Amino acid sequence: MSLIDFLRRIPIFGGLEDAELGRVATYLRGKTYRAGEVIMREGEQAKELFIVRQGEVEIFKDVGVDLEEARIALLGEGQCFGEMSLIDIMPRSASVRALTETEALSLSYSDFRALCCGPTETFTLLVMNIAREISRRLRLADSLLAEYNIHSRSARGGVGSSQP
Amino acid sequence: MSLIDFLRRIPIFGGLEDAELGRVATYLRGKTYRAGEVIMREGEQAKELFIVRQGEVEIFKDVGVDLEEARIALLGEGQCFGEMSLIDIMPRSASVRALTETEALSLSYSDFRALCCGPTETFTLLVMNIAREISRRLRLADSLLAEYNIHSRSARGGVGSSQP
Repeated sequence: MSLIDFLRRIPIFGGLEDAELGRVATYLRGKTYRAGEVIMREGEQAKELFIVRQGEVEIFKDVGVDLEEARIALLGEGQCFGEMSLIDIMPRSASVRALTETEALSLSYSDFRALCCGPTETFTLLVMNIAREISRRLRLADSLLAEYNIHSRSARGGVGSSQP
Repeated sequence: MSLIDFLRRIPIFGGLEDAELGRVATYLRGKTYRAGEVIMREGEQAKELFIVRQGEVEIFKDVGVDLEEARIALLGEGQCFGEMSLIDIMPRSASVRALTETEALSLSYSDFRALCCGPTETFTLLVMNIAREISRRLRLADSLLAEYNIHSRSARGGVGSSQP
């Protein structure tokens, strides 16, 4: 599959015309990771979005005093990670490890901002698409939290995280 | 506190010039809710952002076959809810109930889109700010999920929700 055909299927590039998609593509860098290799580490300041071109990665956080690993997601071809770093100014919220040999495309924060100098509509659309992706994940996370809250019988005490 | 002074402290309006803030203010509608009144209901199609001007609200989801209520957040003055509905095209992901008499400001989806017809930078900034707010909440939700995963000893099986 050509790069443009691949990008056309990625939700965060939804609605972009082919010419704009081609411009985005010039900013993407291909990277390869071995099985077991850590691609990003929780707490790092790096600002970069990744799209899995081929392979599988796990997202995990280090939890508790023993920094035990807790997996929070598995991602495969066409899925992205690190997109929150293009939006907010916080350190990495979790670590990512390649589970198989993995090819990824990366977009740095500075290149993301450079896209802003093109048609403003493209940049706005990208930000809106990324927001939708984060929103989709928050809906899922909230559903899981609500399930946990019920199961732990602490519903009325509640843990505070998010909202509709 | 004047409305503009109040809005200036709200994160999703961060970076807006006073003139733009004034333009946004003309689209906001004030609403009052009694203690116990449901402001929005999970599953509704309504697209509207709310900002708590005064009072306290709880966010909850109906979980399981018995549709038991699970609280996922408490929000007070200056906090917003419903902002995901301006970004994605999904039904309400949770319900919101006023815990005390509550004054709120609302911005409808159509008025949000109308803001797009002004300076594009204002609209882009608003979308970026809302994305930051959602991102902040996803980080918190992911931390809670990771804690739950460790506590339920299912870390290596993992529940999939989101990512860095």
